Amino acid sequence: MTTRTPLSRLDIEGVVFDDEFRNSTINLLTAHESIRRYRPDPVPEAALTAILTAARSAPTSSNLQAYSIVVVTDAGRRERLAEFAGGQRYVADTPVFLVFCADIARLQKVSRRQDREFAARTLEMFLLASLDAGLAMQNAIVAAESLGLGTCCIGSLRNDPAGVAAELGLPQGVFAVSGLCLGYEQPDSRRGVKPRLPAAATVHREQYDDSDLERNLQDYDRTMTARGTYEGRRVETGDVERSEEYGWCEHTARRTSRPQTLLARSASLRADLVEQVEELGFTIR
Amino acid sequence: MTTRTPLSRLDIEGVVFDDEFRNSTINLLTAHESIRRYRPDPVPEAALTAILTAARSAPTSSNLQAYSIVVVTDAGRRERLAEFAGGQRYVADTPVFLVFCADIARLQKVSRRQDREFAARTLEMFLLASLDAGLAMQNAIVAAESLGLGTCCIGSLRNDPAGVAAELGLPQGVFAVSGLCLGYEQPDSRRGVKPRLPAAATVHREQYDDSDLERNLQDYDRTMTARGTYEGRRVETGDVERSEEYGWCEHTARRTSRPQTLLARSASLRADLVEQVEELGFTIR
Repeated sequence: MTTRTPLSRLDIEGVVFDDEFRNSTINLLTAHESIRRYRPDPVPEAALTAILTAARSAPTSSNLQAYSIVVVTDAGRRERLAEFAGGQRYVADTPVFLVFCADIARLQKVSRRQDREFAARTLEMFLLASLDAGLAMQNAIVAAESLGLGTCCIGSLRNDPAGVAAELGLPQGVFAVSGLCLGYEQPDSRRGVKPRLPAAATVHREQYDDSDLERNLQDYDRTMTARGTYEGRRVETGDVERSEEYGWCEHTARRTSRPQTLLARSASLRADLVEQVEELGFTIR
Repeated sequence: MTTRTPLSRLDIEGVVFDDEFRNSTINLLTAHESIRRYRPDPVPEAALTAILTAARSAPTSSNLQAYSIVVVTDAGRRERLAEFAGGQRYVADTPVFLVFCADIARLQKVSRRQDREFAARTLEMFLLASLDAGLAMQNAIVAAESLGLGTCCIGSLRNDPAGVAAELGLPQGVFAVSGLCLGYEQPDSRRGVKPRLPAAATVHREQYDDSDLERNLQDYDRTMTARGTYEGRRVETGDVERSEEYGWCEHTARRTSRPQTLLARSASLRADLVEQVEELGFTIR
């Protein structure tokens, strides 16, 4: 018998199968939960090395390694980054804050070094570099959790790409895709694995098929409402409150609609990201 | 003593630290290697469930779950996808081919369902959805490798986004970011963990600093040349062959320069990806 992590998604979804397909890594991956309350204890240097080596071991498209990681521990810098990220306190409280960047600056330098003209100023290269950063970040998350550390992705660094770039001294061609809080969690910081849409809604066989979407949405709304996920966390719209049920569907529809009526912090649809990343040296259009 | 995976990146880089920071998951992550030769044996359904549940457990921005996964096992479909992906045989040979998609179609349906206007037609939403797909894929890779399966990311699906969308029946608002081969490897399909740029080149402390880049590039070129990485794999440019050393720098500079002179297969810089993803229902500009 494998020792089972109590909070695995396999358990909450009632998935049962042979223990041979359930190992400590599967248990770890399916027990993931973001942590937003950190103890001040530092992260041991050996743990950081293991985590960064795992990040550097992720696949990277054509081995281009079009990413960089900035390790931030300085308290003042974490405070300033927390402000750029919409004032999320845990960015300031986490002992280590990792910033995963799309990086084409290095590739451009390599082209110049080899006396060749860099021609990859494209959306493709922006996407490839961002994905390289994302895959490295996900490996860092898994490695960290295997060592008993908690993590939380901070996509809201994209609220102010230029501010973040200035704070981290990023040259042209480097864009902070996401931050990652990293530290030991406070007691009682877990709510349990967050339910996801039923597998049938996100996983398709052979071809895309969402013919059961309505039923899956109803199931998921019930699950998330019963869990109290949105209590005290509603997205305010400024509309007269309708009496409708407030579940994932309504929360999500509010987050992806009419930015002008939403609260600044939860609202940013970052409509001007094209201009911002082009100012940072990427070409999108 | 933890049992050590012989090929871990920690070993090839000579990193030594306390065994308390080296567990089976760290060993697994740092021993990653892409597999390009697969046995025809099917992937057990329980393994696939574990892998997909791990993928669905990855972080997703604001819990939007802006991705879909298409599980392809049909041999004819794998053959056709292999063609879209530039004729890579292992896409056809792998028993299971997973396609990780950025998906805003579901979010748009949810907005309509809630009688709200979807306003997230932005580069930010394209990036967020692509990252969601990427994080899910990385978890699938880790889960698969923990179960003794091999994987290989297939970014070249982006060579023909419309063709892939038609083959998989993707609706408007869904874009195949990357494929993933999944299966048991043939004997002798491993070359050992691929060396990466020295950590000092991709990992920065407090602020971005590439003042040692030239030394790091020289080190890496020596490592990759000594390993024979590019033997028989040079990117042809049509130029008169210069006598320069051919290492990562030259290989990378060729891949990211002057697309018109490069071989079709290794060359695609996908300069028209903006138009292609906009035809698929995303808004970039």
